[in-house]
Amino acid sequence: MSQTKTYNVAVVGATGAVGQKMIQTLEERNFPINELKLLSSSRSAGKKVVFKGEELILEEAKPESFEGIDIALFSAGGSVSKQLAPEAVKRGAVVVDNTSAYRMEDGVPLVVPEVNEADIKEHKGIIANPNCSTIQMVAALQPIREAFGLKRVIVSTYQAVSGAGTQAADELRQQSKEFLEGKEMKAEILPVGSDERHYPIAFNALPQIDKFQDNGYTFEEMKMINETKKIMHENDLPVAATCVRLPFFTSHAESVYIEIEKDGVEVSDIHNSLKEAPGIVLEDDPATQTYPTPLSAAEKRDVFVGRVRKDLDQSNGFHLWIVSDNLLKGAAWNSVQIAERLVANDWL
Amino acid sequence: MSQTKTYNVAVVGATGAVGQKMIQTLEERNFPINELKLLSSSRSAGKKVVFKGEELILEEAKPESFEGIDIALFSAGGSVSKQLAPEAVKRGAVVVDNTSAYRMEDGVPLVVPEVNEADIKEHKGIIANPNCSTIQMVAALQPIREAFGLKRVIVSTYQAVSGAGTQAADELRQQSKEFLEGKEMKAEILPVGSDERHYPIAFNALPQIDKFQDNGYTFEEMKMINETKKIMHENDLPVAATCVRLPFFTSHAESVYIEIEKDGVEVSDIHNSLKEAPGIVLEDDPATQTYPTPLSAAEKRDVFVGRVRKDLDQSNGFHLWIVSDNLLKGAAWNSVQIAERLVANDWL
Repeated sequence: MSQTKTYNVAVVGATGAVGQKMIQTLEERNFPINELKLLSSSRSAGKKVVFKGEELILEEAKPESFEGIDIALFSAGGSVSKQLAPEAVKRGAVVVDNTSAYRMEDGVPLVVPEVNEADIKEHKGIIANPNCSTIQMVAALQPIREAFGLKRVIVSTYQAVSGAGTQAADELRQQSKEFLEGKEMKAEILPVGSDERHYPIAFNALPQIDKFQDNGYTFEEMKMINETKKIMHENDLPVAATCVRLPFFTSHAESVYIEIEKDGVEVSDIHNSLKEAPGIVLEDDPATQTYPTPLSAAEKRDVFVGRVRKDLDQSNGFHLWIVSDNLLKGAAWNSVQIAERLVANDWL
Repeated sequence: MSQTKTYNVAVVGATGAVGQKMIQTLEERNFPINELKLLSSSRSAGKKVVFKGEELILEEAKPESFEGIDIALFSAGGSVSKQLAPEAVKRGAVVVDNTSAYRMEDGVPLVVPEVNEADIKEHKGIIANPNCSTIQMVAALQPIREAFGLKRVIVSTYQAVSGAGTQAADELRQQSKEFLEGKEMKAEILPVGSDERHYPIAFNALPQIDKFQDNGYTFEEMKMINETKKIMHENDLPVAATCVRLPFFTSHAESVYIEIEKDGVEVSDIHNSLKEAPGIVLEDDPATQTYPTPLSAAEKRDVFVGRVRKDLDQSNGFHLWIVSDNLLKGAAWNSVQIAERLVANDWL
């Protein structure tokens, strides 16, 4: 970005898994920052973080912290956003919120720039960053939808522990060691820290991400279903999700079945639509065993797509394997990208 | 089993991951054995295995090994079955073959006893044991199909490394240690030992099980598609599969979407059909976070079902999470179960 105008930016939740990636991404993207303010809980206040070679000291996030801030990136949990995002807006900041607090609220844009950048303009102070597993799916489906129309989505996810925070990643590391040493695994965090029961994630798979809702789906599954419809402006699009936590640290993978509107489409047509799409990298060649994996996608900002196959029974049905770094495109990078579009379009 | 008649039984591939479980299952089930002959490659011949407190010495598998054998359980790879199963049949044995060598051959019954026990009777010497991921799926879908009819199946799998043999399990253990110690992971086995490229499985997910076919699907995916139709005697049943290898040792899990024939069916009806079904255990209560996982299903012979949900858009659509020990119901136990039904029905 070659703008001369610069902005006062705050990151709320600067010590979290996503907050750290936000700071890293702001630096990598050379975001036009005048002053960067790093905010955290009182517990982490006083810690130091290096940004562009300079040591910044974390401050406790309070309503007054947002005086003079132009853009505030929130990723400190829903309750912090509920409490402090309105305070930031009151003081003139535009908030990009990476929690689920405002995502489904009417009038709050829920944005994946590759899909609905124009929605950013409608903000009234808060722009919501979607759920990680939703972002990478809609980013990959958008070029297919534009070219061939989209009738239906059924997704089964393969999600990394870092989506549940740094404590969950620590738990996977610790349990893996315990298992390999023949010890009993201690489970205290996953699947959901605040839920009643905990199960080992190391060398296991947990078909629960976030809490169960009254309809038997988990909140994560309902996020994928509802957020996809909102981002795509298609309230009637059938979307079904099954979300599963797995023993890897970074990147979510998704096995996605879609039905498209158009007839006579072949795998090569789907490939072509993906090849030209911004933010999407096609890695799909069975002859050379080429496909994305969580490890290959980690630390990258793109969404990777492979294993594109036509359904053998349904001529407008296709299967895809979509992988992306859940902390980058799934969270920090999508938030910074929204901030970049805000600034580039002068929609502050 | 309380029969007085006993049988001479051979296990071919006695040192493999499945072979060991076959021997263990024959003992646990108190199969009516007169003499147990353990056969292996020349490399493993001479090794000792304990069966019912007695040491048995492994012999090299040769055509003559099957003289006097009534039932031969094969799990030593497709090429061994191709070569030696006809020799065993020629000598009067009935072969239960756990490789893919004969599964799709006309006239060879492909059997999951809970689904198509009667097919065993039609054997001409060889009965094929289906692919592990297929067995647990059709066992769980059969009671639903009987009660409500089955129109469509879409499955995404979460498969354990032991399905690729003991070397793959060793590789996961070794790579996990390497990763935790900050070393580079050596990948030499997975996804497919004999394929060109190998990728780390530890803290990763590989969307390839078995080799790619010309249509872009893997052989594992085509096994699930074709074997399901054969076992269920429904050549026109639409079945789609995406198969993924994951970093756990035992049990396959499956996210399965089905559409049923009957209208007006609720989750409680699906629950009821599963509760009464042989070999199926329903573990499904969101209120208490009750669902099966690979670790909870390991070392058990049953197929566990949880996360039963009605699709939110398709009134005859349901989602299920099916988990079973891939070496037991997926292989050794299903083979021994076929042998039990052979003997109980006097279909030798």
